[in-house]
Amino acid sequence: MKLWDKGFSTDKKIDHFTVGNDRELDLLLAKYDVIASMAHAKMLGKVGLLTSDESAALAKELSAIGTSIEEGTFTIEDSFEDMHSKIEFLLIEKLGDTGKKIHMARSRNDQVLVAMHLYLKEELFKIKNETKELFDLLMVLANKYKSVLLPGYTHLQIAMPSSFGLWFSSYAESLIDDLHFVNAAFKVADQNPLGSAAGYGSSFPVDRTYTTQEMGFETLKYNVVAAQMSRGKAEKATAFGISSIASTLSKLAMDICLYMSQNFDFIKFPDELTTGSSIMPHKKNPDVFELIRAKCNKIQAVPNQLTLMTNNLPSGYHRDLQLVKEVIVPAIQDMKACLEMMTFSLKEIRVNKEILEDPKYDYLFSVDTLNELVLDGMPFRDAYKKMGIEINKGTFTPKRDINHTHEGSLGNLCLDEIKVKMNKVLNS
Amino acid sequence: MKLWDKGFSTDKKIDHFTVGNDRELDLLLAKYDVIASMAHAKMLGKVGLLTSDESAALAKELSAIGTSIEEGTFTIEDSFEDMHSKIEFLLIEKLGDTGKKIHMARSRNDQVLVAMHLYLKEELFKIKNETKELFDLLMVLANKYKSVLLPGYTHLQIAMPSSFGLWFSSYAESLIDDLHFVNAAFKVADQNPLGSAAGYGSSFPVDRTYTTQEMGFETLKYNVVAAQMSRGKAEKATAFGISSIASTLSKLAMDICLYMSQNFDFIKFPDELTTGSSIMPHKKNPDVFELIRAKCNKIQAVPNQLTLMTNNLPSGYHRDLQLVKEVIVPAIQDMKACLEMMTFSLKEIRVNKEILEDPKYDYLFSVDTLNELVLDGMPFRDAYKKMGIEINKGTFTPKRDINHTHEGSLGNLCLDEIKVKMNKVLNS
Amino acid sequence: MKLWDKGFSTDKKIDHFTVGNDRELDLLLAKYDVIASMAHAKMLGKVGLLTSDESAALAKELSAIGTSIEEGTFTIEDSFEDMHSKIEFLLIEKLGDTGKKIHMARSRNDQVLVAMHLYLKEELFKIKNETKELFDLLMVLANKYKSVLLPGYTHLQIAMPSSFGLWFSSYAESLIDDLHFVNAAFKVADQNPLGSAAGYGSSFPVDRTYTTQEMGFETLKYNVVAAQMSRGKAEKATAFGISSIASTLSKLAMDICLYMSQNFDFIKFPDELTTGSSIMPHKKNPDVFELIRAKCNKIQAVPNQLTLMTNNLPSGYHRDLQLVKEVIVPAIQDMKACLEMMTFSLKEIRVNKEILEDPKYDYLFSVDTLNELVLDGMPFRDAYKKMGIEINKGTFTPKRDINHTHEGSLGNLCLDEIKVKMNKVLNS
Amino acid sequence: MKLWDKGFSTDKKIDHFTVGNDRELDLLLAKYDVIASMAHAKMLGKVGLLTSDESAALAKELSAIGTSIEEGTFTIEDSFEDMHSKIEFLLIEKLGDTGKKIHMARSRNDQVLVAMHLYLKEELFKIKNETKELFDLLMVLANKYKSVLLPGYTHLQIAMPSSFGLWFSSYAESLIDDLHFVNAAFKVADQNPLGSAAGYGSSFPVDRTYTTQEMGFETLKYNVVAAQMSRGKAEKATAFGISSIASTLSKLAMDICLYMSQNFDFIKFPDELTTGSSIMPHKKNPDVFELIRAKCNKIQAVPNQLTLMTNNLPSGYHRDLQLVKEVIVPAIQDMKACLEMMTFSLKEIRVNKEILEDPKYDYLFSVDTLNELVLDGMPFRDAYKKMGIEINKGTFTPKRDINHTHEGSLGNLCLDEIKVKMNKVLNS
Repeated sequence: MKLWDKGFSTDKKIDHFTVGNDRELDLLLAKYDVIASMAHAKMLGKVGLLTSDESAALAKELSAIGTSIEEGTFTIEDSFEDMHSKIEFLLIEKLGDTGKKIHMARSRNDQVLVAMHLYLKEELFKIKNETKELFDLLMVLANKYKSVLLPGYTHLQIAMPSSFGLWFSSYAESLIDDLHFVNAAFKVADQNPLGSAAGYGSSFPVDRTYTTQEMGFETLKYNVVAAQMSRGKAEKATAFGISSIASTLSKLAMDICLYMSQNFDFIKFPDELTTGSSIMPHKKNPDVFELIRAKCNKIQAVPNQLTLMTNNLPSGYHRDLQLVKEVIVPAIQDMKACLEMMTFSLKEIRVNKEILEDPKYDYLFSVDTLNELVLDGMPFRDAYKKMGIEINKGTFTPKRDINHTHEGSLGNLCLDEIKVKMNKVLNS
Repeated sequence: MKLWDKGFSTDKKIDHFTVGNDRELDLLLAKYDVIASMAHAKMLGKVGLLTSDESAALAKELSAIGTSIEEGTFTIEDSFEDMHSKIEFLLIEKLGDTGKKIHMARSRNDQVLVAMHLYLKEELFKIKNETKELFDLLMVLANKYKSVLLPGYTHLQIAMPSSFGLWFSSYAESLIDDLHFVNAAFKVADQNPLGSAAGYGSSFPVDRTYTTQEMGFETLKYNVVAAQMSRGKAEKATAFGISSIASTLSKLAMDICLYMSQNFDFIKFPDELTTGSSIMPHKKNPDVFELIRAKCNKIQAVPNQLTLMTNNLPSGYHRDLQLVKEVIVPAIQDMKACLEMMTFSLKEIRVNKEILEDPKYDYLFSVDTLNELVLDGMPFRDAYKKMGIEINKGTFTPKRDINHTHEGSLGNLCLDEIKVKMNKVLNS
Repeated sequence: MKLWDKGFSTDKKIDHFTVGNDRELDLLLAKYDVIASMAHAKMLGKVGLLTSDESAALAKELSAIGTSIEEGTFTIEDSFEDMHSKIEFLLIEKLGDTGKKIHMARSRNDQVLVAMHLYLKEELFKIKNETKELFDLLMVLANKYKSVLLPGYTHLQIAMPSSFGLWFSSYAESLIDDLHFVNAAFKVADQNPLGSAAGYGSSFPVDRTYTTQEMGFETLKYNVVAAQMSRGKAEKATAFGISSIASTLSKLAMDICLYMSQNFDFIKFPDELTTGSSIMPHKKNPDVFELIRAKCNKIQAVPNQLTLMTNNLPSGYHRDLQLVKEVIVPAIQDMKACLEMMTFSLKEIRVNKEILEDPKYDYLFSVDTLNELVLDGMPFRDAYKKMGIEINKGTFTPKRDINHTHEGSLGNLCLDEIKVKMNKVLNS
Repeated sequence: MKLWDKGFSTDKKIDHFTVGNDRELDLLLAKYDVIASMAHAKMLGKVGLLTSDESAALAKELSAIGTSIEEGTFTIEDSFEDMHSKIEFLLIEKLGDTGKKIHMARSRNDQVLVAMHLYLKEELFKIKNETKELFDLLMVLANKYKSVLLPGYTHLQIAMPSSFGLWFSSYAESLIDDLHFVNAAFKVADQNPLGSAAGYGSSFPVDRTYTTQEMGFETLKYNVVAAQMSRGKAEKATAFGISSIASTLSKLAMDICLYMSQNFDFIKFPDELTTGSSIMPHKKNPDVFELIRAKCNKIQAVPNQLTLMTNNLPSGYHRDLQLVKEVIVPAIQDMKACLEMMTFSLKEIRVNKEILEDPKYDYLFSVDTLNELVLDGMPFRDAYKKMGIEINKGTFTPKRDINHTHEGSLGNLCLDEIKVKMNKVLNS
């Protein structure tokens, strides 16, 4: 059964080409179609398009379908084009004519749109929480290792003293920036599109304010054409949000892979988190982090994928938009897995506390020594020249007692202030 | 003179390769370096690293340089690597040793970072205002043409009645979504990075809270490594913001180009806004809109450009990051020009009021006719079949009196509600 | 069983994260692992690393596995990490110690690399053939409809006379350009990487020239580090090839969707190839072509996806590279499906032969009329002004007998020359 | 003067928006417009559309303009829209009515297309030559340092012995793959589009075969619609070619930046090629290589930029296509500069010959030791276990005499074979 069936036997090849893996993705989305259908059924009752008995019967059956989805017993057979057809079939099977009435005053477009908005909201909420968990862990690690020093690099050249406190909390603070984009995406998703029908509204006196409240949306996407335009747009908003986080995680994974190399040897992970080889026992391949990096880099390609698929299409629905979900849904799953794996693995990090004992890191301290001269009154450029001469002559002795006191420096991490900032973003 | 000059005569070819068009871009950014240098000089006075006389003298000279920038008399000669070198040169020329002291407790990295943050904030603010202007115009047009009907398309096939009211205000409401991303970008930029020095802080007792207030940042990017990481990241945040708007403008431009085609003939623009040919007098080439579309599509490529340039680089500064500004600055200029040209041009739009008189649009009304049957109690699927039969038999008469009443439909545009939503985003 | 198993029970979560959908993709690739393993086994026999009995026994068992793959009975259970583990398991099960010897002088890296190269070669060959089929159809259609006129547009404005002959064969000739990139990709893939081991060669006296011939590669990727570097690079080369074709198909699909709109009404397809609605009988939604367009646009994102996943990684293998196949393999499948569906559907195209009878197309002929003046000796710019005046006065009468004779014009399509060009590319 | 001027005073803002930086880019392209105009003028003479005197006069003046371009005295004032207007103006100034006749039987579209094709051909040829120079240098370095060992990494973990011979020549051999794409791009560009007029041909009896030979194109882009379609497509083909090379250079630059880090210390460059700091004398910032990496990564974004700008546009010219040159021209300039700087800088590389004396690299040799056991008859998996036990017990002694003999291994670089392969690509 297909919603648009016209009695022609459509060629099977076309069927396979047009349906693709929709049924599989729809198993993840069916839950939201049920929520939206329930709100729709109640609204139809409220405005008198259904009797209260019909409305209640539909709500009851939808609730049962919702339970079967939760329990994992809901299936979409090949004879159904998608979840919408299957759910409608189940309603008709149980309720006959009443079942048919669920489709009144809405279109399949409508259903896909609203289900996707509900799905995105829930996933963005989860992603926010998982990001917060990683943030918390990074802050704990920053505090725990705040006095363990690390060389700071510029141009991959040894430059200035840094610390594990700085390193861990820098990623924590960066995640706050990313959450601004997750929040923006959430706001885009948190607008009820239901009622736009095929993208131009309908002559039914539907009550969109009611369904908005019923489904817990903050507001409506009022304009029905704008609602239709959010197909693809809401997904891209989400893609911006997750690719922001992915960018931060990818960079952290890159640092980790580098720092695990024997040429750095700054950190280690237990064997359970690395792969190796009996004949190269020094080898601790950071596969988990390489995969986080790769998956996050793939996620960063998603905004562009979606742009290419939706760009330069005039307004109004095009079938192209159906393919959007096969891009965004796996990306969201990957994002959650990467956040989870990063937090899971990072808990086990072991930090090398003797890094700076290697003499190759001596010059790390030259800038601080220079600054003392300046603090004693010498103009910067002159102190700089003086120091250069001493170093060339070999008369320079590094000054290893670091005294950085300003906000955000290694002696003053401002972890509390960063936590306050995070909480502000979480609550906005 | 170069900040990193080591007395070697560096090959000119390398010089050209490494400096590129920095001087040109720096003319746009110099204003912000002056603002940040002024805050820095005052702070150095406040914490006692400069005497109050020195601090005041630097502030005065910086103010003079600021004036010369505003007046367009500031230049960066080829003998200077960038604006920072030139400004420092001017200070030393006027103030001697005191001039040299401005570079105390900061690095060039610092300067670039903070100047870019100030620049992004100002530009994002302007873009927000220009977006609001376009929004206002679209809302005026929506109201003015709310009763002029337009065919609504799905799959580029004539589908349902739409209206110019719906069409104009759909783009207005879509712009609200885009501003969530502009806001997110603004929040990312609105954090003071000054004080991170080369990316690892310094042993100077700088007062970053003071400079934060002085420059009007909402908060600090506390962690100095995070501050350094925002190089590239703040620009990408901005790119997400503008590419959201660009996506909406590109789609609007696509609609306009299509609707201006003789095959649609829905809208017209005066000759000043089109190009044509004396021998093809019907031709009104929508060059302005094609260029908006193309520029906006180019802007949409910017997030990916920036990702490619910054991705998989371990933490810490790399020279790669210098090239980021040559991507983001022109994109911002283009974005502003596109918004301005769209608003400028759209004011002149002329709407065809007789579109639906063409009989090819008759079937637009079939869905509304169907819905009447349903409202009279027939199950949707049954009404659908009945109508199909009538149409096939040729007994169908379109019902042209449209009565769409629900929120966001063509009979109830909810323009006031959309304005309220816009104001909420503008003020958040 | 995992090749890198170290006796530790690795957490299942990590296992799921690291293995992903490899097993599924490997079912497509297993065939090529068998071909390469067979060549490897024979080579080991040839150079004396295996006895000829061992070599023959391995070859025989591999052949049996190859048959099971062809027959669809080969499976990769969850207890195996990938196809390589499963195939090795089968060999050991049958041949004991001899089975273990297959892994001598190669690494899993090696196996993946060579299997991917063989896979890409075969798929690129198929894609070339499918492109040729589409080309042939387009040429047949161009010839069949060479005298049916079509308005030619510039800026989406009606401009000059065109023809279905021109339109069909323009896409045919464009495909030739795309095949240059498919050929380039084929040449990149057609180099034997086997023998690079983990990317640095080995101390075994393997005979790479022998395996090159055995597997039918044109040449070796000699340098073992270069061979390793082709991981990701060969896939991206393929992505360039298919995204070239995808770009052409996407444009053709865009034209088709536009030309099927009632506002153009240039072409039609039978009901089996469109979707519609009983109550909007005029609607013939071009779903198949919209999906071709969307899939082709998604394919065009693949080069960038691969770049993001592999860029800025230092030389040497990284686990990131494992994810490359989950991007390229589905893209290749999509490309073949799009080519097939385009050819399948285009066969059914029905062309409107009366397009130009609509008076809105009258001015199409103004340029030709102008050219006559010029051919009669008037300078172009003067003729242009004269014509403009006539048209403005309303004294212009279009001259509908088109006489375009130059190479590649609508009166002289040069189909034979284009075919010759295609054959040259096919054979190079 | 503008070609499409209609007598209206077009607003200056629009003028700035629509013309952009065309004049600047056109200075690079003007040379090719002259070549094409000359061929066109001669052809008009040949087919009798001009007298032989007119044709000769035009050719003479065009030759003079060509000389002024070469000498750098040609300018495009703001009163001219582009090079085409300026060149036509010069011809009319000198030749009066004869000058006006140059525009007969062609359009500006035509001119831009053919000039771009000529430009791309010349630049691709130069890029090929510069790539060959870098290839030659890499081969010389490979040979010179073939016996200096280097650790080979997998997962950034120390893995197997490699050599500078392998490292240098791996990039050389990789460049061969890239040239396949440069060749493909060249073939796409090497087709004469002149004669397509506005994209639909003309009623003039032009002789396109003649202009093809005159300008040295290998063949025609026959179909005039296909010729028009190559606008954007030829540029993207070029972008594929250069982004292939850019990918290889970026990776090489990444290796260099890493190997210059004190944590690797494999290679050095003289001070002229690095930047540093007097107070951190160990610092040798690899700015040149970081900029090569960044510019090459930016180049890798170009195919996607062009796709976004041209995708989903129906066939026929759109003004969007004008912006294509502002993307491709700077990318080509950057590509040439990167190739030149890489070759220039790499000549100065200094290789550390004692790398492997550091005991952290001892386990590099474990695989070779294992292989000896296997060569002595032990099954691989069994040998692997035995070795693991020895290493764990601490009884393992690395065997430092490496004996890799197979094709492409560090003992048998096959440099001659790689050169042969390169020559084949260069000549195809």
